[in-house]
Amino acid sequence: MILYAEDLVPGTTIELGSYKVTREDIVEFATRWDPQGFHVDEEIAAAGAFGGLIASGLHSMAIFQRLAVDGAFSTWAMIAGRSISDVQLTAPVRPDMELTGRIHIDAVEPKGPGRALVHKSCTLLDGDTTVLTFLGSSYVRTRP
Amino acid sequence: MILYAEDLVPGTTIELGSYKVTREDIVEFATRWDPQGFHVDEEIAAAGAFGGLIASGLHSMAIFQRLAVDGAFSTWAMIAGRSISDVQLTAPVRPDMELTGRIHIDAVEPKGPGRALVHKSCTLLDGDTTVLTFLGSSYVRTRP
Repeated sequence: MILYAEDLVPGTTIELGSYKVTREDIVEFATRWDPQGFHVDEEIAAAGAFGGLIASGLHSMAIFQRLAVDGAFSTWAMIAGRSISDVQLTAPVRPDMELTGRIHIDAVEPKGPGRALVHKSCTLLDGDTTVLTFLGSSYVRTRP
Repeated sequence: MILYAEDLVPGTTIELGSYKVTREDIVEFATRWDPQGFHVDEEIAAAGAFGGLIASGLHSMAIFQRLAVDGAFSTWAMIAGRSISDVQLTAPVRPDMELTGRIHIDAVEPKGPGRALVHKSCTLLDGDTTVLTFLGSSYVRTRP
């Protein structure tokens, strides 16, 4: 089943799956894309502001995106992402956290023939603690 | 040499290095973090809105971050990233583009003892074409 823009109802909340973060995963991602000491080096991280290794903010965003594709976007008639705003890293992501994701559909805005811009509030959580929030907008096809 | 918050002068522009994007890189990143057809499947991408494979927006952000760490943040007394806003994916990133990055220091805002919040305008370019812009704020230590 494919969901078109008309099927995405403002006010709906979609609970995504979960992702277990490992120490190896944190170091591997950051070594490639964000090789700052507090993301890749245990000793530097232990002496730093967070007292231990924390995930790159981009890694948190990537984990959210993977949960969102698997749990939502893969069934949407997605054209492409358009913008992201107000990304807040509200708590550090540490090894062994089990993160879950949530999408809230804020609005569906018609945008030219055949497509709409879908505005979403996105949240990544460690249990009840929010670790990441942002607003995302994506182009989604309208029903043929 | 370490640059503290006092050394980061509002109005300064920092030109970062360059990153050659490959088809393999686009597919590898997206397969792990953003497995939507137009990022991972040549045939789906060819039939899609962009007429070919395009990089995940997160991949563009990751490329920028790697250029920023190598060309700037690795010499800053960085504590951690705090927020990102107004991410605009202004043009598709395609295989074989040679991307360059640029950071503009917008403001340095004292934030409690020993640290400041550094506000930056960040740009990723393919030649003269801007492919990604966003505003980033990071905590940086003040001089001891």
